[in-house]
Order: sequence, then structure tokens, then C-alpha cells
Amino acid sequence: MTTGRPDRPAPPTDHPRVMVVGVGLIGASIGSALTARGWPVHLRDAKSSHARVAETLGSGSLTPPPVEHVDLVVVAVPPRALSVVVREALETYPNATVTDVGSVKAEVLATVWGHRDLHRYVGSHPMAGTQHSGPTGARGDLFADRTWVITPHRRSDPDAVRAVTALALACGARTVTMDVDDHDAAVARVSHLPHLMSVLTAGHLTTVGEQDLALAGPGLRDVTRIAGSDPGLWEQILTANATAVLAELQQVRDDLAALIGAIEQGAATPPDGHRDAAALRTRLARGVAGTRRIPGKHGAPSVAYRQVVIEIPDAPGALARLFADVDRAGVNVEDVTIDHDQNRQVGYLALSVEPGAAAGLSDLMTAQGWDVQP
Amino acid sequence: MTTGRPDRPAPPTDHPRVMVVGVGLIGASIGSALTARGWPVHLRDAKSSHARVAETLGSGSLTPPPVEHVDLVVVAVPPRALSVVVREALETYPNATVTDVGSVKAEVLATVWGHRDLHRYVGSHPMAGTQHSGPTGARGDLFADRTWVITPHRRSDPDAVRAVTALALACGARTVTMDVDDHDAAVARVSHLPHLMSVLTAGHLTTVGEQDLALAGPGLRDVTRIAGSDPGLWEQILTANATAVLAELQQVRDDLAALIGAIEQGAATPPDGHRDAAALRTRLARGVAGTRRIPGKHGAPSVAYRQVVIEIPDAPGALARLFADVDRAGVNVEDVTIDHDQNRQVGYLALSVEPGAAAGLSDLMTAQGWDVQP
Repeated sequence: MTTGRPDRPAPPTDHPRVMVVGVGLIGASIGSALTARGWPVHLRDAKSSHARVAETLGSGSLTPPPVEHVDLVVVAVPPRALSVVVREALETYPNATVTDVGSVKAEVLATVWGHRDLHRYVGSHPMAGTQHSGPTGARGDLFADRTWVITPHRRSDPDAVRAVTALALACGARTVTMDVDDHDAAVARVSHLPHLMSVLTAGHLTTVGEQDLALAGPGLRDVTRIAGSDPGLWEQILTANATAVLAELQQVRDDLAALIGAIEQGAATPPDGHRDAAALRTRLARGVAGTRRIPGKHGAPSVAYRQVVIEIPDAPGALARLFADVDRAGVNVEDVTIDHDQNRQVGYLALSVEPGAAAGLSDLMTAQGWDVQP
Repeated sequence: MTTGRPDRPAPPTDHPRVMVVGVGLIGASIGSALTARGWPVHLRDAKSSHARVAETLGSGSLTPPPVEHVDLVVVAVPPRALSVVVREALETYPNATVTDVGSVKAEVLATVWGHRDLHRYVGSHPMAGTQHSGPTGARGDLFADRTWVITPHRRSDPDAVRAVTALALACGARTVTMDVDDHDAAVARVSHLPHLMSVLTAGHLTTVGEQDLALAGPGLRDVTRIAGSDPGLWEQILTANATAVLAELQQVRDDLAALIGAIEQGAATPPDGHRDAAALRTRLARGVAGTRRIPGKHGAPSVAYRQVVIEIPDAPGALARLFADVDRAGVNVEDVTIDHDQNRQVGYLALSVEPGAAAGLSDLMTAQGWDVQP
């Protein structure tokens, strides 16, 4: 499927001819990445204005190719429409491998399972995009060095798996192969369940009075941040992955019951007056253990960085001066967080650095006149 | 209680003589704040080395005053010890107002309720400290413009309430008066419950395989961050506030059951093939509504800032150059977050700015050669 065909009207190419269906952030970014690599890319979208913008941005061409010339179809429509569009693509493009980039894989596979050309379908899931809903523009390098999960099934044509793998690699991603159900369970655990826990926490705030909310600190904002994401998109994701998500939620329901029991036990005063908070302590320690299992950035194992916390006035230029001074210290900042004081016009900047660099940075910043927390 | 006494050996002072019992971060910071204002401060701690460090840092004197000369006792010991030390303070210092700075108020009050000098006890809770466990040093300005909740009870002597209010004001805080039970319910809602939701989410990760965790993104880190806090401290807080916390947890248990029902309903395929995800959509929208109820920084109502997202190489100096360029744009950065790409050696810096400033900042940064997300 990767060689030019003598009967093709367009100039011959060594690359597969790709049809991207649905040019939101993901679809348009794939188009841009492939176009930059010299792949012939065609675009389709239910919204023609959408497609025109993507063409203008260099994601591909709106001119429809002869259907039999399409080698690879990338379905990048909203979750709810995936199954229908994948089936339609198998019907429309008789020689194409068809993949989709949805974040849930089993449901789509189930709905195309009976299709006579099932072997041409291989699902995939590029782990890209950020939690920021603001900047939604396409970028050709959105997938560079990102993980792109490929989810073959037992009827997959090996050539189709190779075609989807080539797509991911051409976009600059690193591929991981997972079973469809394993993938869906994994995202249920590390993405969909945490999202719902954030939603539950945030939703509970609708019952809380304003006077109480005035006592809120940065921890509450952390826990509830992702609950602000688009409910329409999440409704589709969660519905599509309901089985895996429900399995996790039921475990958390049991954990919550155990936690309630542990707090009741810890608060009860037995006849000897000695409270037993061991069960609660175990639950809290389990939380600490869980945070330590999350991989650090760059896929490296979690490293215990040291934090250097500096008071910073909430005014233009203060951050610039601060980072210029950090720069002069020659220290690589691994991470940075800013806590704004609820009432004072200042913030606290916490710079995470290698443990060996913390003391020196602290001394140098103090010498520059910054108020470094001891 | 605020005037010098003719029989006092020390030079007369217009300020009350304060005994701080327990000189961790909070106690030592109170001592430093009051010392800076000219208040006579004495320090005690079960760990004498602890007390010596605080004295060296200028938090007060280790010389014990005659007990009858103490006007105000501030009990700043760990939650578990509060009740015993508050009772002991009422016994030891016959003329003193006694307050504590614990984050749970009803339990301490209950244990001193029968005391003959109950009228001299007034609880309080300074909302200070950060989620960073690393830098634990005392700071005289820790409470500047922070909220300090005062929790009088129906037997409180009005002079005692005034004395505790004067303490908070002398530390630079703003006072809020709340009923003891209202306070405990408020912190259960905005602090203790969110903490437990983070613990549940993080604790669940102990059951998740490494391959699955490799798919984790920044959202998971946000939700689980506070679960990494000291389990020993939280065990004491939660046990002391068990009644209020359990009331919130039981509501969340019901919310979780409703959420499970909503996902089951949304995923079920009825005979007409039309799924009904309305209940799930309502639950997700409730989460969005909850996030919008959290007050913004500086106690101001939540403002919808715009984010400008810029790619930034993970190298020393890049942040400094970037902020220098932001500075040149003359734009006030309201908040900043960095997302590290799991695999690429780059990060994405999201600058939150006033909506009107976003486009100009974006253009200027692009002109400076930065890769700004469209």
C-alpha cells in the first residue's frame, strides 16, 4: 500500500495516501504532521468551514481523491460518532486501512466486529493534547515523542497494523501496542476515574455556602481543576468506556466505605479511652504510596526533587527578574508552581531542583535580595 | 489585661504578655510576628531543642515568666495534644486568656467544657501555611492578610474574645468570627473532604500496573498532589473532625452511587437504541459549576483568565529568557503552570493573563521567536 500505483492520476509517491476524517485539534495536527513529511493528505469534516481552516493551515487538501486510491483513513471525529464513521470508511474506501484516534477502543471494535472488512480496521490512541481547553489550534509536532497506543485485534491484517504504526511514527510518536480491553482499562484507571473523582469533589461544592468557600486553599483548586473540562466530551468518553470505568468506580465505592469505617473507628472512644486510628492511618499511607507510583516527567522514575520557595511580589517584571537570577545561578529548574496568597498581594514560587542544587540556589537567591523560605 | 501591672518585675508594656506553647511553624511564626510588634513573648515546647531554635530565630524568650503574669496563652501543639495542653494552660496560668490554633475546634471545646475557667478559653484557626512540606521555617509575616477564624462559644468572656482578636490582628491577619461547629463543617467541606478524595484517588493507584501508569497525564498529578501530605498529621485532624467529615463523606457516597447509576444508565442500550446520558451529563455539569464557585486569588470573585501557552525547552536559562520577554510585553501574569511532556525534552508554559492582554502577548512572544500555541 505504500508504493505509487500506475493508474493514479496524481504524481507517484512512496507514501500512503491518507484521508483524515474530522479535523479538530487531533485530526488537523495529524494532517499537518504528515504533510510536513511529504505524505499526500486529504481532509473531510462534517463542518466545511472547519475543513477549510485546516486546509489553510496546511493540514492537507480538500480535493477528494478517487476512493480506491486512499491507502489509510484516520477517523478523528468526536467519540459518539466514531463507530458510524469507521464503518462508513470501511465501506467507502475499499483498499484503505482504517484507524481511529478515539480515547476508548473496545466499543468501536465491537460495532465493526461483524464487518466483512474488519481486518482492515486497527484502532489507535495518540496520548496528546493538554488539559488546557483554550489554545485549540493544530500543530504538526503535537505528537512528537508522545506515546501512541496501537490496539490490534485478532482479526487484524498484519499489513494494517504496520500501516497504522507507520502513521504514528511519521507523526513523530512512539508506539506502544496494547490489547483493546487492556487499553480501555488503563485509561479508566489513570484518566477517567481521576476525572470523576475531581467531578465528585467539585460537584459537592455546589452544596457549600459562600462563607465556607472563602476558607478554600490551593489544595482544593488542585483536586478540582480537571472537573472544569467539557462535560459534552466527557459524557461521550465515559459512556463509551462505561464497563471499565464502572469496575474502577465500584472499587472506589468499596474504598470509600472502608474509609468511612476507618474514620468512625478512629473517632470512637472505647471504654479504655484509647482511640484506634490504625485503619485510618493505613488508608492515608496508601494515598501517599499511590502518589509515589506516578511516573515523573520524561517517563523517568519519580525523583525526589527539593523545593526552594521564594516570595514574589504580584507585579509585572518580578517573575522575569526572579528567573534571570535563577538563570545566573546556573540551576536547571525541574518544575515550578506558584501559590497565590488568598489575601496578600504576593505569591510563593516553589522551584523544584535536584537535591544537590537546592542549598546553593537558596544562598544565591538570598544574596540577590529575594525572600527565600528557610 | 493589656496594661502593665505595678507588681511585674519586667519593664511595663502596653502589650499583653504571651506564652506560646508549641513552637512548630505556626507557633514560632506567631512568636516572631508578636515580637516584631513589641509584644513580650515566651516560648515553651516539649522538645527543648525546638524551643531553642525558635528563640534563636527571634520568636521569643525561653525564660519562663511568673505564671500569674501571663495574659495570653497560644497553644500551637499537634492536634492530638491540643485538649490536654489547653486544659493544662487554664490550670497553670490563672489570669490568662487561652486560645489554640488547631484546624478543628469543636473537640477541644468539648473537652474543656466542664472546666471552671472555661470563659477564659476562645479557640481560633489561622488559615496559613502552604501545602509545601519542605520549607518549614517560621516567618513573622506568615499570617499577614490571611484569614484567622475566631470561634467564641456561649460561655466566652468578651474580654477573652477581644484578646484573641487582638492577637490575630497583631499578627497582621484579618479576623472572621464563626461558630465552632460551623467552622468545623466549613473546613470539612473545603479542606478535609477534598483531601480524602485525593487520598482515595491516589490510593487506588496502588492497584494499577506500571504499564497503565505510563499513560498518566498532568490531570492525575493535580488530583493526587495533596494526598502526598503527612499521614500522621491528617490522621489527627480527621479523627478530631470525624463527625463533620463523615457527614460530607456520606453525601459523597450518595453522589458516587448516583454517578454509578448515571453511567450505567448512559451506557445501557434500550430497545429503541437511543442511549440516555442526561443524568451523566448533569453530574458532569455539576462538577463544572462547582469549580466556578471557588473564589479566585486575593479573595476576589473567580475571573476567567485567558491562557497563552508557549513551548519551552527543558534547559537552564530558557525560563529566564521567556519571562524576560514576557516582562518586555508589560503584561501581568496572573498564574503560570508548566506541563512537562512525558516523553519529549520540552515543557509547555501556560501563562494566565487578563483576557484583553492575551492576543497582544501572544503576538509579541511569537515575534520574539517563541513557539506560541495558536
